[in-house]
Amino acid sequence: MTDPAWISELTFTDQGLIPAIAQDAQSKRILMFAWMNKESIVETVESGQAVYWSRSRQALWRKGEISGHHQLVEEIRLDCDGDVITLLISQIGGIACHTGRESCFFRVLKNGEWTATDSVLKSPEEIYSNE
Amino acid sequence: MTDPAWISELTFTDQGLIPAIAQDAQSKRILMFAWMNKESIVETVESGQAVYWSRSRQALWRKGEISGHHQLVEEIRLDCDGDVITLLISQIGGIACHTGRESCFFRVLKNGEWTATDSVLKSPEEIYSNE
Repeated sequence: MTDPAWISELTFTDQGLIPAIAQDAQSKRILMFAWMNKESIVETVESGQAVYWSRSRQALWRKGEISGHHQLVEEIRLDCDGDVITLLISQIGGIACHTGRESCFFRVLKNGEWTATDSVLKSPEEIYSNE
Repeated sequence: MTDPAWISELTFTDQGLIPAIAQDAQSKRILMFAWMNKESIVETVESGQAVYWSRSRQALWRKGEISGHHQLVEEIRLDCDGDVITLLISQIGGIACHTGRESCFFRVLKNGEWTATDSVLKSPEEIYSNE
């Protein structure tokens, strides 16, 4: 399969990865940060759903595959250096974080302490059960 | 100097870095992505202005030092894994990108092409002249 032309403008790390930041299309809240490789970004563009690269599993990570919390991609942006992308997404289920919260960025630095601002909307046990 | 206690909850890469995403406090637009090391994040918190780590120069990068485009930090968040931070900032001069644009993410993927959506507000020559 030939790479699409737009891929040539991306700069990947030595490991073949590029950082991707997912932002809620409505609220503009930053929901998560993950990595993509060439294959995952091509599949993201073609399918319209976010596909990342799991560094721990060394495998494509089709967001929502188990949890059902898919991310519908409305817009993809590239930065000036071509080495970071952003996704404007619609988050199915309203939960992006594996802890069951809306956003992975649920801790704010306040008086020298990381303080949680979000509650768990659904327990991880419930999210990742396959029953 | 002793590290502040909140630092212990951060996970740095093997190079001692952590990704930082700067987002406009008003519009919530993502303005830039850069890296921080321990020293730069401590200085960011203490000074209230964004300080990154320049990987190309291998030096602290006090944003705005030359350009005057400082970033006043209103909020710092940490993700679930403790290995990415976000900054809500007020961007002095309205220009975060070294190309003279509001945001580094000025290209959107449209019909298979990266299309610029932002114009240059101030030329880099003008921004980075020291006269």
